[in-house]
Amino acid sequence: MQVLITGATGFIGQNLVKSLLNKGYSITTIVRHNSDISSIDSRAEVFRYSGEITELIALFQNKQFDGVIHLASLFLASHRTEDISSLVFSNIQFGTELLEVCKLSETKWFINTGTFWQHYHTDNYNPVNLYAATKQAFEDIAKYYTETSNMVFTTIKLNDTFGPHDPRNKVFNLWYRLSQTDDTLEMSPGEQIIDICYIDDVIGAYETMIDNLMNTSERVKNKTFSVRSKERMSLINLSKIFEKAIGKPLNIQWGKRDYREREVMTPWENGENVPGWEAKYTLDEAIKKTIGAMK
Amino acid sequence: MQVLITGATGFIGQNLVKSLLNKGYSITTIVRHNSDISSIDSRAEVFRYSGEITELIALFQNKQFDGVIHLASLFLASHRTEDISSLVFSNIQFGTELLEVCKLSETKWFINTGTFWQHYHTDNYNPVNLYAATKQAFEDIAKYYTETSNMVFTTIKLNDTFGPHDPRNKVFNLWYRLSQTDDTLEMSPGEQIIDICYIDDVIGAYETMIDNLMNTSERVKNKTFSVRSKERMSLINLSKIFEKAIGKPLNIQWGKRDYREREVMTPWENGENVPGWEAKYTLDEAIKKTIGAMK
Repeated sequence: MQVLITGATGFIGQNLVKSLLNKGYSITTIVRHNSDISSIDSRAEVFRYSGEITELIALFQNKQFDGVIHLASLFLASHRTEDISSLVFSNIQFGTELLEVCKLSETKWFINTGTFWQHYHTDNYNPVNLYAATKQAFEDIAKYYTETSNMVFTTIKLNDTFGPHDPRNKVFNLWYRLSQTDDTLEMSPGEQIIDICYIDDVIGAYETMIDNLMNTSERVKNKTFSVRSKERMSLINLSKIFEKAIGKPLNIQWGKRDYREREVMTPWENGENVPGWEAKYTLDEAIKKTIGAMK
Repeated sequence: MQVLITGATGFIGQNLVKSLLNKGYSITTIVRHNSDISSIDSRAEVFRYSGEITELIALFQNKQFDGVIHLASLFLASHRTEDISSLVFSNIQFGTELLEVCKLSETKWFINTGTFWQHYHTDNYNPVNLYAATKQAFEDIAKYYTETSNMVFTTIKLNDTFGPHDPRNKVFNLWYRLSQTDDTLEMSPGEQIIDICYIDDVIGAYETMIDNLMNTSERVKNKTFSVRSKERMSLINLSKIFEKAIGKPLNIQWGKRDYREREVMTPWENGENVPGWEAKYTLDEAIKKTIGAMK
């Protein structure tokens, strides 16, 4: 099976590319013309996209992809005024170009990636930030393509994710560095509920979705599914699991910082899990594996 | 009152600018750097936007607009692959930049313009074409700004519009030219129901919305309203009114062409009219006025 993956240089993308290659898929990744591709498994083909849509059409004619997994996005927790054009380009225009070319090429399926942040206050739609709003906007664009083609489009909504060798500046990296020093770290009061999913579970969700698309595509067509962690807990309680796993206390000063603007205190609760999938890893196990790779 | 109007070179924009100036509003229009502005009433100020958002910020700091009326859009009944970036820029990115600057400047209100074509089969959301999908996408973006500011955002959804001196290549212009020759015109079977609103009524809807925003903004905040014509009828029956008004039969060969892809047979029916407004002109009156200006 020929699959095109966007966002392959990112943490989830790298892992998904490797896992699908191990399962025997033929993988092509699409990256910006100037991307560093050293993080992409060398067995994958790499297509550098200049932004010239005719090149994208030629790629699809050449490859006849069965499906596309769209992971690429520009994530900005909060944007600056000058980020708008990049957000619109990365999160709306590029995806629209992909859908256009999928329609022209009669690509069978398209797995989009959304975010729990489209559901502030666990609302039906309420974007936490402009990033989340652009994700919602892209789903509206996709509706046009699903109405005018036979493509099966489905969205997997992610919240936080983590795992070994995660290059992103997320909380476990922060806490690990803290544990290696005598520094103290000022944090928010820490009562926000965290839903954070281990990378192997996230990859499993995408792979299960491909199975769904192959077998019972009507079940998932034009629908949105979520990737929820096995357990949810407050940030403070999460830090306790981390402390236990690493075997020492963290010098965190809780409440020394404010919650961020529009902090998500309770992640989206109304999403339906990817059919046939559920998270396997407990936070305890997954954090131990992640710390293991840091050492 | 200081009002910024986008799309002022278009048919509705020209008429709205003139009407608001006559009512004593101070009007600034925003146009592309290379636009022909000869159609804009010379009493309006014209700001040429280079696409550099810092210039937009400076404009808003300088003017302290009370509100924005956003009419600008790139309308394409059907798009070509190479139109995607223009559609995304014109119908999503430019509006997002405006909202960003409105938020920074604490602009009080923003009237957006949508289309009945966001409601194919009179569905809650089903875009007739990519143009309509970009309009929906922009409303999603706007949700972020309304959630994070005090701006009152409202959308007026239009369907077809017409009136004297309409430069657009629409059906009445086509029929008028036909009536001046011995040609025949091939058209679709003509059973599609037409909802077409006279320009004076359209302008009235925007002006009524401004009144709503000044007086009972909670009533319209974050809501969508429609501008429905007084009468709806099939295209064939519309041609009969036109024939009567112009005093001669039209050589139309009905059914010689197919309906267009995703032809709207019944325009959106579930929209709520702009509060306090309804169309005043019968099609008979309005068509006569329009033909009068063609002669």
